[in-house]
Amino acid sequence: MEPIRLPAREIPVPTSVSEPAQSMVGLGPLRQPHQFPAPDDLAGWRALVTAEDEAMLSLIGDRVSQRDVDVRELDTAGVRVFEITPRHVAASDPRVYLDIHGGGFVQGGGELCRLMGVGSAGRWGRRVWAVDYRMPPDHPYPAPLDDCVTAYQALIAGRSAASVIVGGVSAGGNLAAALILRARDEGLPLPAAAVLMTPEADLTESGDSFRTNLGLDPLLPQSLLPGSLLYANGADLADPYLSPLFADFSAGFPPTVLSTGTRDLFLSNTVLLHRALRTAGVAAELHVLEAAGHGGFLGMAPEDRELDREIRAFIDRQWGA
Amino acid sequence: MEPIRLPAREIPVPTSVSEPAQSMVGLGPLRQPHQFPAPDDLAGWRALVTAEDEAMLSLIGDRVSQRDVDVRELDTAGVRVFEITPRHVAASDPRVYLDIHGGGFVQGGGELCRLMGVGSAGRWGRRVWAVDYRMPPDHPYPAPLDDCVTAYQALIAGRSAASVIVGGVSAGGNLAAALILRARDEGLPLPAAAVLMTPEADLTESGDSFRTNLGLDPLLPQSLLPGSLLYANGADLADPYLSPLFADFSAGFPPTVLSTGTRDLFLSNTVLLHRALRTAGVAAELHVLEAAGHGGFLGMAPEDRELDREIRAFIDRQWGA
Repeated sequence: MEPIRLPAREIPVPTSVSEPAQSMVGLGPLRQPHQFPAPDDLAGWRALVTAEDEAMLSLIGDRVSQRDVDVRELDTAGVRVFEITPRHVAASDPRVYLDIHGGGFVQGGGELCRLMGVGSAGRWGRRVWAVDYRMPPDHPYPAPLDDCVTAYQALIAGRSAASVIVGGVSAGGNLAAALILRARDEGLPLPAAAVLMTPEADLTESGDSFRTNLGLDPLLPQSLLPGSLLYANGADLADPYLSPLFADFSAGFPPTVLSTGTRDLFLSNTVLLHRALRTAGVAAELHVLEAAGHGGFLGMAPEDRELDREIRAFIDRQWGA
Repeated sequence: MEPIRLPAREIPVPTSVSEPAQSMVGLGPLRQPHQFPAPDDLAGWRALVTAEDEAMLSLIGDRVSQRDVDVRELDTAGVRVFEITPRHVAASDPRVYLDIHGGGFVQGGGELCRLMGVGSAGRWGRRVWAVDYRMPPDHPYPAPLDDCVTAYQALIAGRSAASVIVGGVSAGGNLAAALILRARDEGLPLPAAAVLMTPEADLTESGDSFRTNLGLDPLLPQSLLPGSLLYANGADLADPYLSPLFADFSAGFPPTVLSTGTRDLFLSNTVLLHRALRTAGVAAELHVLEAAGHGGFLGMAPEDRELDREIRAFIDRQWGA
C-alpha cells in the first residue's frame, strides 16, 4: 500500500492553547535527534545517561518544592525505594501511590527518581513510593521490571492491595502496566487503579504517531528503539511484559486513567492502549491535551495543572476519598 | 513565534490497525481539495451540494439496511423529521435519539438525512428522530439551529427530556451541542446526554490539527471555512451558538461522549471540547481511534464497530438500560 507523501510545510504555533502553552510550543524542538551508542558500547550508554540525567536535573531540580514532604529511604528486598509523605498525610493512612519513574528505561534513577517522586507526592497529595529500579546498560530486562514487582510485593505485604495505586510516565507507564500484568499472572492481588501518562506501551513502535508526530513533539525528536533494544536485551519487544499494549486485558486489569497530547510521539501508544483496555471491559478513561507533546507542557502551562487536577480527582475517586 | 518547518516526508500505512482499516488508510485521500463557490454564488453552492449529496448517496445508499425499521415522516411546527423505529422497540417506549445530520451545514438533507437516521437507529437500537433542518445557501444561520431547537421542543412536549439523547456527527455535532446550549439558555429542560462524534466544534478552526493533520485526513482535505462562512452569514464565528467550543459549560450541560481519530482534521476540535466540558465539571468521555480520519474508517473496519459498541453502551448507561 502506498504511503502518503506530504510536502514540506510550516506548522504555526496554534492559538487554541493558553499563552504559556503557546510560549512552550513556540520554543520549537527542545532536543535534537542524536546518535545512540551501539548496543554493546556500555561506556557510551553510561556517558549518555549521565549527561541526560544532569540536563534533566538542572531543568527540574529547582522546580520541585521539597518543603512540605518527608522523605525516607527504604530497602525492600534489595530494591531502593524513596517513601515520600506530604506533611498533611496521617501516619496511619495506608494508601500509597507506587511511582515508577520514566526516562526511556535508562535514565531517571537516583536523585532524579527521588525528585520526580516528590513531584508526584505534591501533585496527588498522597504518600508515594518512588522505586529506584535497576536499569540498563548494566541491568537490562527483566531486572527493572523485577525490581518494580519486588517493591509492589513489599507494599502489599504491609497493606491491602486496594490501598495501592500504581502509576508512571513514559517508560514508567510501560513498567507500571507491566508490573500489574506480572502481579496478575503471578496471582497477586491487583492495585486499586493505574495511572499511565503518555505510556511507552509499545516498544515495537507500531503506532502511527511515531511517524505523523515526528518533528512536532518537542521532547521526543526520534525513535526510541535503540534504548528499547538495550532494555529488552534480546527478549521479544512484542512480549506483553515489554509492550503491555499486546496483553490480554480481559484476564483482569484495574481502572486506569491515561493521558497524552495531540503532538505526542506516544499519542498512538496511548489511544491504542485506551481502546485495548475498554474493549476488554476495563474502566479506562482518556485525556488528550491539545498541541502538547510528550510530557505535556513540562508543567509550564495551566493545561498541565488542569490535567493534574483531573488525575488527582481520578485517584481520589478510586480511593473513595 | 516561529513555526515548525517540517520537511517533505512519507507517512506509511501503520500496522497498528486492523487489516480492513489498513486497506482504508491505504486508499489515500478519498477527496481532493476543491475550489468552493464564492459566498454570493448561490447557484454554484446549490450545484456543489447536489453533486456532493449524490456522491454520498451512491456511497452509503446500499450499505444502510432498511429492513428492520419503520419510518414515518413528521411535521413538527414546519420542520420535517424522520421518525425511525427499529421493529424491536416497543411503541410505548418514550426514548428518542435526536439525530442531527452532518454535511458541513450545506449537505446531507432529505433522502441522505433519512438514510443516516436509519443508520443511527440500527447502530444504537433506538427510536430516532432525524431532523431535516433547513440549510444554506437559502437558509443560513440561525435557520438550521432554529429547526433543531424546534424539533427538540416538539420532542419534549410529548415526553420527559430525560427520555431524549441528542447526537450528531461533524456539523451535526456542532448543531447538537448548540441546540443544547440554546435549550439551556431558553430555560428548557436538558436532554439525558449528548453524543458528539468528530464535532465541528470550532468554526474559527483554531485547532492545531487543522494544520498538523492536513493531508493525512482522507475525507477532509482542506479547511471548511467557506462553508462555515456561508452558514454564519455574517454572524460571529466565535459565538458559542456557532462554535460551541467557546461556550460556558459550567452553566449546565448533560453527560457527553465524544469521538475522533488521530488523523482527524477535527482531532483538536474534539479534544478541546472534551477538556472544556471536563474542566466545567461535565461528565464527558473521550474515545480516539488510531490512524482514523474524520468519520473513522467509514464503517469498513472493526474499529468502527467497536466504537459503535462503546457509544451504544454509553447511551444504554445514560438511560439506565
